[in-house]
Amino acid sequence: MSSATPKTTAADITQATLRSFAQTPEPRTRRLLEAAVKHLHAFATEVNLTTNELIRLAEILTAAGKISDASRHEFLLISDIMGLTMVVDYNTNQKPEGAFESSVLGPFYRADAPWIEPGGDICRQENAGTSTLVSGRILSTEGTPINGAVLDIWQVPANGMYENTDPTQVEFNCRGRLKAAEDGAYRFWTVKPVPYPIPKDGPAGLILDSAERHNMRAAHIHVIVEAPGYEKVISELFVKGDLYIDSDAVFGVKESLIAEFVLHESTADAAAYGRPTPFYTVNYDFVLASGQAREEIMFSAGRA
Amino acid sequence: MSSATPKTTAADITQATLRSFAQTPEPRTRRLLEAAVKHLHAFATEVNLTTNELIRLAEILTAAGKISDASRHEFLLISDIMGLTMVVDYNTNQKPEGAFESSVLGPFYRADAPWIEPGGDICRQENAGTSTLVSGRILSTEGTPINGAVLDIWQVPANGMYENTDPTQVEFNCRGRLKAAEDGAYRFWTVKPVPYPIPKDGPAGLILDSAERHNMRAAHIHVIVEAPGYEKVISELFVKGDLYIDSDAVFGVKESLIAEFVLHESTADAAAYGRPTPFYTVNYDFVLASGQAREEIMFSAGRA
Repeated sequence: MSSATPKTTAADITQATLRSFAQTPEPRTRRLLEAAVKHLHAFATEVNLTTNELIRLAEILTAAGKISDASRHEFLLISDIMGLTMVVDYNTNQKPEGAFESSVLGPFYRADAPWIEPGGDICRQENAGTSTLVSGRILSTEGTPINGAVLDIWQVPANGMYENTDPTQVEFNCRGRLKAAEDGAYRFWTVKPVPYPIPKDGPAGLILDSAERHNMRAAHIHVIVEAPGYEKVISELFVKGDLYIDSDAVFGVKESLIAEFVLHESTADAAAYGRPTPFYTVNYDFVLASGQAREEIMFSAGRA
Repeated sequence: MSSATPKTTAADITQATLRSFAQTPEPRTRRLLEAAVKHLHAFATEVNLTTNELIRLAEILTAAGKISDASRHEFLLISDIMGLTMVVDYNTNQKPEGAFESSVLGPFYRADAPWIEPGGDICRQENAGTSTLVSGRILSTEGTPINGAVLDIWQVPANGMYENTDPTQVEFNCRGRLKAAEDGAYRFWTVKPVPYPIPKDGPAGLILDSAERHNMRAAHIHVIVEAPGYEKVISELFVKGDLYIDSDAVFGVKESLIAEFVLHESTADAAAYGRPTPFYTVNYDFVLASGQAREEIMFSAGRA
């Protein structure tokens, strides 16, 4: 009211906001809200965010909400390209040394994929791509075979599209579940995955474009491994030498998840594996930590 | 690939993400993106955000986008109740000691309100509330009168609804522009503003409810003051003693913006002011800093 009244500072506003959340009854909610206030205010202050920039940010976030639907999750896509999803994955799924590391689930998972027999093929259609035999063992961190492990696998065929986004593919093409043997051994046929683009027609694309970043995912095979008494792992296997192995748009690649795809072109190999050449083989052991998954991902909540 | 491969850490992910934005050509965009990465990752790590919490956050933000339209700006509302809008306002509009401080514009501004004569009334309808005469001077920070100042005023009448959200009110009720006199003096009649609720049926309401916070704004008169050669100020005047003066839902109250509403009930005062009692008077001087506004708010961009 008078000129002598002390001015309100940004720190005053932050303190007032934190006080307003101090009565939040649920402790976890309170922690999240207080940390959100702190980091939002710190961000705005660090960059000296202007009102017009705030309005522009609100417009971009509104557009992200508008473009989202049951099968398009733009905010998760933004989280992916900002590296946030992988940081959250790291926090949630830290594994002991040597254990199979986790990576993003991605938006294309479908539960209840058909079971295949050991050595069966998850690609159910001609021309899905170059045949690839993936095999190895499910082991504990002590190196002992795990009995009763289950693999849930999905990926794109050669056209770079998941079957549930592509009407030309048969249901559950390149998706399947299989049981590992009692000695932990597993093997299944699929095709060599290819890089594919993430959607660029929304705000995530705007961010990528503004940074002159591409929108390609490094080629990968999605895999979920679980066994009774061991931590379930949601992850991906990547292709050594892939064009995007060092610039995956969602930062999903970890060194330990890169597998060598060995090319077979000889008639001897064709005879040995019972497949026409060329084909690839991949050997990869999944090492599981004992325990339970830290949390069960709520597939239904915001994921297709 | 082998057990000896080093594990990827959260810091690795942050560094990879920052590298991906390092080629952003526009410097301001680069700074905003890099700071956003840093603070998003720091937030997630500090609270150990889980994948399910990230999915839940994405759902809430999607709902905010879905509920937004040309006159409902849920992300700005969320920014308001998180104190972010006021921090941004502070960063953008710092004023020298003693100058009229800024506050939130709010979503209900309408450009081109009708001009009123000095001493005129901006409320154009019966029963708008208890009459209030607001008067004072427009001064420089040196205390000299400013010639050529313009005030743009808007507020709610006694029913707590802005005219453009209430079909029972006449157009531009309780909105008006006026010119101050050459000696900087201004005066206009309005009504005493009342507290009113901000929308609670969207994600902002969810946040308020989860914190057991109310959704009331402290009663206020919106005011924009501008004069050639001086910084334009977007602000609000608050009512001393208002029920919500210490808990405004959007943190808009600053000590220097609280004005005393003096109640007049005597027949002598009725005669002196030419108004039936009861009525209020408010005396408030607007002190402007010389210069230009730091930025022109893009009203059309995301605001009604």
